[in-house]
Amino acid sequence: MDHSDRQRRLHAALAEHKLDWLLVTHLPNIRYLCGFTGSAGTVLISERGATLFTDGRYRTQARAEVSGARIIIARKSPTLAAAEFLAASRSRTTQRLGLEPHSVTVGQREQLSAILKRKWKLISAPPLIERARMVKDREEIRRIRAAIKMGAALFQIARKKIRPGVKEVEVAAAMEYEARRAGAEGMSFSTIIAAGKRSAVVHGRASEVRIPRRGFVVCDFGVILAGYCSDRTRTVHVGRPTHDARHIYQAVLEAQQAAIAQVRPGVTAASVDAAARKTLRKHGLDRYFSHSTGHGLGLEIHEAPRLAAGQTQQLQPGMVITIEPGAYIPGKQGVRIEDVVVVTSAGCEVLTPTDKELIVV
Amino acid sequence: MDHSDRQRRLHAALAEHKLDWLLVTHLPNIRYLCGFTGSAGTVLISERGATLFTDGRYRTQARAEVSGARIIIARKSPTLAAAEFLAASRSRTTQRLGLEPHSVTVGQREQLSAILKRKWKLISAPPLIERARMVKDREEIRRIRAAIKMGAALFQIARKKIRPGVKEVEVAAAMEYEARRAGAEGMSFSTIIAAGKRSAVVHGRASEVRIPRRGFVVCDFGVILAGYCSDRTRTVHVGRPTHDARHIYQAVLEAQQAAIAQVRPGVTAASVDAAARKTLRKHGLDRYFSHSTGHGLGLEIHEAPRLAAGQTQQLQPGMVITIEPGAYIPGKQGVRIEDVVVVTSAGCEVLTPTDKELIVV
Repeated sequence: MDHSDRQRRLHAALAEHKLDWLLVTHLPNIRYLCGFTGSAGTVLISERGATLFTDGRYRTQARAEVSGARIIIARKSPTLAAAEFLAASRSRTTQRLGLEPHSVTVGQREQLSAILKRKWKLISAPPLIERARMVKDREEIRRIRAAIKMGAALFQIARKKIRPGVKEVEVAAAMEYEARRAGAEGMSFSTIIAAGKRSAVVHGRASEVRIPRRGFVVCDFGVILAGYCSDRTRTVHVGRPTHDARHIYQAVLEAQQAAIAQVRPGVTAASVDAAARKTLRKHGLDRYFSHSTGHGLGLEIHEAPRLAAGQTQQLQPGMVITIEPGAYIPGKQGVRIEDVVVVTSAGCEVLTPTDKELIVV
Repeated sequence: MDHSDRQRRLHAALAEHKLDWLLVTHLPNIRYLCGFTGSAGTVLISERGATLFTDGRYRTQARAEVSGARIIIARKSPTLAAAEFLAASRSRTTQRLGLEPHSVTVGQREQLSAILKRKWKLISAPPLIERARMVKDREEIRRIRAAIKMGAALFQIARKKIRPGVKEVEVAAAMEYEARRAGAEGMSFSTIIAAGKRSAVVHGRASEVRIPRRGFVVCDFGVILAGYCSDRTRTVHVGRPTHDARHIYQAVLEAQQAAIAQVRPGVTAASVDAAARKTLRKHGLDRYFSHSTGHGLGLEIHEAPRLAAGQTQQLQPGMVITIEPGAYIPGKQGVRIEDVVVVTSAGCEVLTPTDKELIVV
């Protein structure tokens, strides 16, 4: 990963927003800027360079992982250590210190104010690093591709395991075991296996419920590989599907394809969402589509942009987003179909595309 | 779980701190107060009762899980919905609204201020719920016991799997598979399997490294069961241990037993830490003990109290804490031994005690 190039681009953004320093506390942003993956860290960045503050537990790890930043091992919380470092810098002019308002807590800000006092102006910075992270570089896309390829393979495990009487968690356990064995750092979120009536629960984490003789099973899962997330949903049907079940499945599939067809540089995130919703409306199912159509993914499972009504962000080549419409009839059944696509200059590429016709187990 | 009793105790704490309302955003605190386990939620609590704000994805789940709180399904972020609810309440007097400063971000606070304007005073509240959570009730201890029992069983899997040439992640994968099958909601943290030289890395998450022919393997792992965490560390030795290795192991074991012997109501958290450190000093190893002796656990893997120098918190019956000293010789080898204990009126009880003599594989 080219950390110095990322930092250089951030310097330009800092100058534009008249920030002398940025205090980076959001861990995925720290990983993005210097490669550090520990659970305790703070980065201070200015035109003069970047410094990572972490604690003694991460001495060896930080040396092995970090590039493009000086490392300081602190005896106290990394954020307090960073503040004391700044307080000791004794600049003559008032310094403008940007904070990440979505990451710094009210308590941390109070501590920072107490340490920095005069000559320091604490400013809620715009999401500068998140904006940069929206567009992935070549190495990032390579890693996301690898994660998605591994993630996609897990669906074959699920297909074999899904049978009436098997517990949802048994399906998830088999998938997660394979992911670990294959070298995943972990799952990118708690695996969703939602069978029968539970398929109508949008976030139906695998439970002790047994798969019934007949009904949908929503499988939504992803792995983390070399820091990057995958995310995919497939919905299979156990037993013979009813006419209604087939109708819902086809409508969701059509909505997903309509949304994918809409993805190209210059269109807004909202318009991709609208394409999925319009198709579901045609089938009388739009009121059962209770979430947004997709989200960016990368170092985090949910990143910008958000594909939802009102989102004016324009798509750009290199953005990596999920397309995942669904329809959920409360207490009855639900379907979701999800792929990850990368925006290209011509439109988009579906990463590891597969046949999406209804699979009956 | 008796949510109304927990809320009643919180009312008393609110009155003591002259808070009319508390805005609860930290998810484990929300689960503690009303049972909700979703990933998006905010609770408003006052003497008049509690209200949970969540979004459409959690409609069914909230109804199934929540007791002792009214549920409002919001179209926007739950915290903004809570603020608008308060803004619409039109009280005549100035209202004091407590926030959780370790959880509310600077960005959220700015949004709250913009919505609430006059008549509302935003106050950083002390960690009232965390303080209450330190002392576990009977049902919580029952759940922690069950989690620890399940967690302890995983070590038998690790013992069988640990052999020279096996990858660390293969050991972790086998343990995690068994945890899932047995009904765990997940692991309470990323499983640590640190073999050979890596045993000196305190947070050595299982990696692709293969277990060498000779050396320590630190196994630190836990499960989440019915919301509650387990945490245990055992260190085994592959091949014949050197004299040095035996010395380090015995010293850490002695330190752990000294710390456990110190646990009883009225002693400070610092004194338990000091007991472990004193024993290691006797063996010339205190400078290799680079972390604190332990922490509370419950709904979170790390809770109050912290067992470290300077911590004046007195132990009380019902507190559940880890005792986990270690010694790590950089680049060479490391050992950690950890159990969970519950403070009793007479001293403490080690939950699922086992023989801790050095196991040679």
